[in-house]
Amino acid sequence: MNKKVILASTSTLYNGGYLEYLLPVLSKHFENCQTLLFIPYARPGGITHDEYTSKVRQAFAKINIEVKGIHEFESPVLAIQEAQAIFTGGGNTFLLVSQLYHYHLIGILKETILGGTPYLGTSAGSNIGGMTMNTTNDMPIVLPESFTTLGLIPFNLNPHYLDPIEGSTHMGETRETRINEFHTISDIPVLGLREGSWLEVYGDNIILRGQLTARLFRQKDLPVEMAPSENLNFLQ
Amino acid sequence: MNKKVILASTSTLYNGGYLEYLLPVLSKHFENCQTLLFIPYARPGGITHDEYTSKVRQAFAKINIEVKGIHEFESPVLAIQEAQAIFTGGGNTFLLVSQLYHYHLIGILKETILGGTPYLGTSAGSNIGGMTMNTTNDMPIVLPESFTTLGLIPFNLNPHYLDPIEGSTHMGETRETRINEFHTISDIPVLGLREGSWLEVYGDNIILRGQLTARLFRQKDLPVEMAPSENLNFLQ
Repeated sequence: MNKKVILASTSTLYNGGYLEYLLPVLSKHFENCQTLLFIPYARPGGITHDEYTSKVRQAFAKINIEVKGIHEFESPVLAIQEAQAIFTGGGNTFLLVSQLYHYHLIGILKETILGGTPYLGTSAGSNIGGMTMNTTNDMPIVLPESFTTLGLIPFNLNPHYLDPIEGSTHMGETRETRINEFHTISDIPVLGLREGSWLEVYGDNIILRGQLTARLFRQKDLPVEMAPSENLNFLQ
Repeated sequence: MNKKVILASTSTLYNGGYLEYLLPVLSKHFENCQTLLFIPYARPGGITHDEYTSKVRQAFAKINIEVKGIHEFESPVLAIQEAQAIFTGGGNTFLLVSQLYHYHLIGILKETILGGTPYLGTSAGSNIGGMTMNTTNDMPIVLPESFTTLGLIPFNLNPHYLDPIEGSTHMGETRETRINEFHTISDIPVLGLREGSWLEVYGDNIILRGQLTARLFRQKDLPVEMAPSENLNFLQ
């Protein structure tokens, strides 16, 4: 398969600009692309599709790629099929997945990305790259038709992965506890991707990129830390 | 209406035993009850229904109330209708609501509580007391049939409410941001209930109890802090 996919934990690092830390990588990832289709459905903070697309347009202008929002097209299906490159931004995963099902785009998006159209996801846009959205951190502000997502990788992601806070007196669940709860009813592995990390999925190779380790959770196994540049092909 | 309901943010305070801080309140809330029906469906950490019920049994033994788990009855519907008192424990709200729909218990549970059977909810068990479960903090480990819950109060809860962490470099959403996202698509008010706080809903009176303030979010309004002993009847 010709997959060319980047799934990033976050769009923005603390003290950094939007997509700033990723631009050198994206410049190579999207080489030969003049235009990019942006999917703004996750609407972080409830901003409009136009506002969100305009923010993305400014970032990609720096690497000379022109951005159009999927909401600007009459047929979102054709927009996906004819795109040179596709980016799904972060926000609320429930809203994003609801909209993708509403417009019947899950199948067509998967097919197009597996066919080789380069894809970038950040946060919620990375979540949908996994098998299901069961391990999102987001608030369930709407009920999607299904939690099944694109399955570009044979496991799930937990973006913005957070380690337990030492000495916390808060009795809510830690991220690790939540993922372990998921594993009481599912055997899909989950990769906790810390901010600043991303997965590079080229063909059948899945490589962890960035400076940090990522935490891999498997049902009935102790979690392990994966080092940068390690591949996760063994999960296939 | 004869409602007699307690909805608590958490079952357990830091350094405290299970339900310990609430026992004096529960002793009064469940006065004249010899037995209590426990709903263990939320399975915190994936523990079994038997394990969870046994933990609850130990806590209620201290106030001389005998506990039976709903899973021990042949008919969960009859178990609810004939209960002297009902308690739904915390864990995963998605799992809890899925199971309540699976066994067709949402309607019967609501009717029974509105009819006067005293009810206690903690965490996930409090979430279901709201209009919908859209403002849970839990991970969506299963897809329930609907997010509509019991509506014992005319608003939603966010249990284990957490204030933003000063100086955090984490780029994931704060609890307030998530609730504001909910309010871009819904006008249901949301009460952020900090650990150690609970709502006492007796008849048509909804009173905030505990030592802490609670944060009330309304669509198109700035959030406000409610003081202990204040009532929330104006939301009706």
